[in-house]
Amino acid sequence: MNQAPKPVISVVAGDGIGPEVVAEGLKVLCKTVGDDTFDFVHHDLGAERWQRTGEVLPAADLEQLAAAQAIILGAVGAAPGSKAIPSGLLERGLLLKLRFEFDQYVNLRPSKLYPGVPTPLAESVTSRGPIDFVVVREGTEGLYCGNGGAFRAGTDYEVATEVSINTAHGVERVIRDAFVRAEQRRGKVTMVHKHNVLVNAGGLWNRLFQTVAAEHPGVTTDYLHVDAATIALVQDPQRFDVLVTDNLFGDILTDLAAAVTGGIGLAASANINPDGTFPSMFEPVHGSAPDIAGQGIADPTATILSMALLLDHLGRSDDARRIEAAVDADMAERGATKRPTSVIGDDIAARLK
Amino acid sequence: MNQAPKPVISVVAGDGIGPEVVAEGLKVLCKTVGDDTFDFVHHDLGAERWQRTGEVLPAADLEQLAAAQAIILGAVGAAPGSKAIPSGLLERGLLLKLRFEFDQYVNLRPSKLYPGVPTPLAESVTSRGPIDFVVVREGTEGLYCGNGGAFRAGTDYEVATEVSINTAHGVERVIRDAFVRAEQRRGKVTMVHKHNVLVNAGGLWNRLFQTVAAEHPGVTTDYLHVDAATIALVQDPQRFDVLVTDNLFGDILTDLAAAVTGGIGLAASANINPDGTFPSMFEPVHGSAPDIAGQGIADPTATILSMALLLDHLGRSDDARRIEAAVDADMAERGATKRPTSVIGDDIAARLK
Ligand SMILES: CC(C)[C@H](C(=O)O)[C@@H](O)C(=O)O
Ligand SMILES: CC(C)[C@H](C(=O)O)[C@@H](O)C(=O)O
Repeated sequence: MNQAPKPVISVVAGDGIGPEVVAEGLKVLCKTVGDDTFDFVHHDLGAERWQRTGEVLPAADLEQLAAAQAIILGAVGAAPGSKAIPSGLLERGLLLKLRFEFDQYVNLRPSKLYPGVPTPLAESVTSRGPIDFVVVREGTEGLYCGNGGAFRAGTDYEVATEVSINTAHGVERVIRDAFVRAEQRRGKVTMVHKHNVLVNAGGLWNRLFQTVAAEHPGVTTDYLHVDAATIALVQDPQRFDVLVTDNLFGDILTDLAAAVTGGIGLAASANINPDGTFPSMFEPVHGSAPDIAGQGIADPTATILSMALLLDHLGRSDDARRIEAAVDADMAERGATKRPTSVIGDDIAARLK
Repeated sequence: MNQAPKPVISVVAGDGIGPEVVAEGLKVLCKTVGDDTFDFVHHDLGAERWQRTGEVLPAADLEQLAAAQAIILGAVGAAPGSKAIPSGLLERGLLLKLRFEFDQYVNLRPSKLYPGVPTPLAESVTSRGPIDFVVVREGTEGLYCGNGGAFRAGTDYEVATEVSINTAHGVERVIRDAFVRAEQRRGKVTMVHKHNVLVNAGGLWNRLFQTVAAEHPGVTTDYLHVDAATIALVQDPQRFDVLVTDNLFGDILTDLAAAVTGGIGLAASANINPDGTFPSMFEPVHGSAPDIAGQGIADPTATILSMALLLDHLGRSDDARRIEAAVDADMAERGATKRPTSVIGDDIAARLK
């Protein structure tokens, strides 16, 4: 009796708290769909591998990852001040490399303030209504393209440049994605840029936003400069439904969005290649958090919620909703007492219906 | 009897609420130092002038401004969606032009949460201690340099670029300024960048931060990626004393900082040319706010506090403290009732001791 091969999910647990939170993500994922649904292939990539072998992302790993149905990523990167690993080596050589190689241009980051979850925002803000929006962050261009250099490096005359590259192709497709999502939500797209200063990139974003908006007359549009958007996120986050923005602005706004909706420990993300040519990648928004690594105290909720995004992507929306419901229930009863990482995973798994 | 010529202060009230808030700034300034201390020269610059004459910053104005002891600027720029004025025309042609021409490399933006001022932050955050920090934003380079372009503009193959230029000269001097300020404050400097992605610019900032830090062993140093810095600003703003960062990150962080300390209506700023070769410029952090212009409801406090920064810069620190004390007193008794722009100006002026 032949069995259909199981979908392969590649796992890059990575550095710091990465392996700790990924273990809980897998625990909940397997409890949800059963142990026999996916084949998990673990990749030993990250700081340790690099320190041991000097390899960041060898061709063999990249090839295997490319063949997977999806990728789960924990976190990569050393502490900001680390002397052991050059800054950016793992971020650019591994995490961003995967986003770019696999053309994961929709970096999807939902933000929702769950009832009962502590937030740094005042009651005067939270009482204005539910906070529930999603940021569609461009994931494959902008200032993240790695285009720039250092001239006369190390001297008093050094000139260091970073180039933000924005293409019509890259901008239009992510704006389109945002409008389609808005149609399935509350019908509003807010574009965030800084077109009064970055007139070239901003001009391109503006033009394509108008073009796509004209094709979606049912969607309300809005625009904020990135500086003003940070104000709105703390004064009036209810105004947002779908935000669409470039790679760097999206990076900044989604950390802030995570903070106002209960913290980076809860923020899930998906790096989606919508046409399916390459695998999509699911990861918590947070980083490797070396300061708390190894203590078993990291919150795995962001990773667990990222498993719901993974299941959505693989067409298992019912299972995705089950994970979300279990997390919802867990959130509602979270008190001030901190549970260890694995206990949070157990508790959420136990709540799966 | 000959009298020494009075110092000349150039005034660019600008667009939208600019003229409304500047009127109150001048009211309080004159009440503080007397009507005969300064000569004010008003410059008709901004949207209206451009629409009337097509001129943004004519050579004659620039020359006069260059000869002033200081410049007061209200706000320039059209609404983000305006079709009447090309986006960025006034921002880049006037405001940024002045910052760059006059080499105002220290863009100083203090943030302080005054007792009694409503904030979007929860009691759990504000109760942790006083919030009082200053952002030293680089003002003359980075992504604001206007270097970039649009290739195949308007087509499906458009490529739009923005180049961030960072020089050792420009980065070192602003970092030095931050360390000197920290020594006069609580002795801590936090650098904000994104050196794990922007490795070239970030590498330069890092290197010079280390260099300058080594010369100031009494100052504690700290580093945050810009995304993490937005989290800290809403979860733990007390951790900051002096922040130093590049032009764009500074733009973003200071709007957020203003929001958490009571709103953009209270946030003052100084664009300082520390060696005095050129005049420095004093302006509220907020923009022209076309949505509320002409109604007499804009809060002039940011502009009034910018007058204190101006007086500090001109060596009149006692007078600067008098303005701050009057604003303090006014803030402490602000209720929920909104006063018109001119009433706030009157009330603060009346509290001057
Ligand atoms: C680790 C870093 C390269 C990454 C980014 O900047 O995209 C992270 O901050 C994120 O938001 O996923
Ligand atoms: C109006 C705009 C060009 C300006 C800036 O981006 O610097 C403003 O946002 C500010 O912060 O002073």
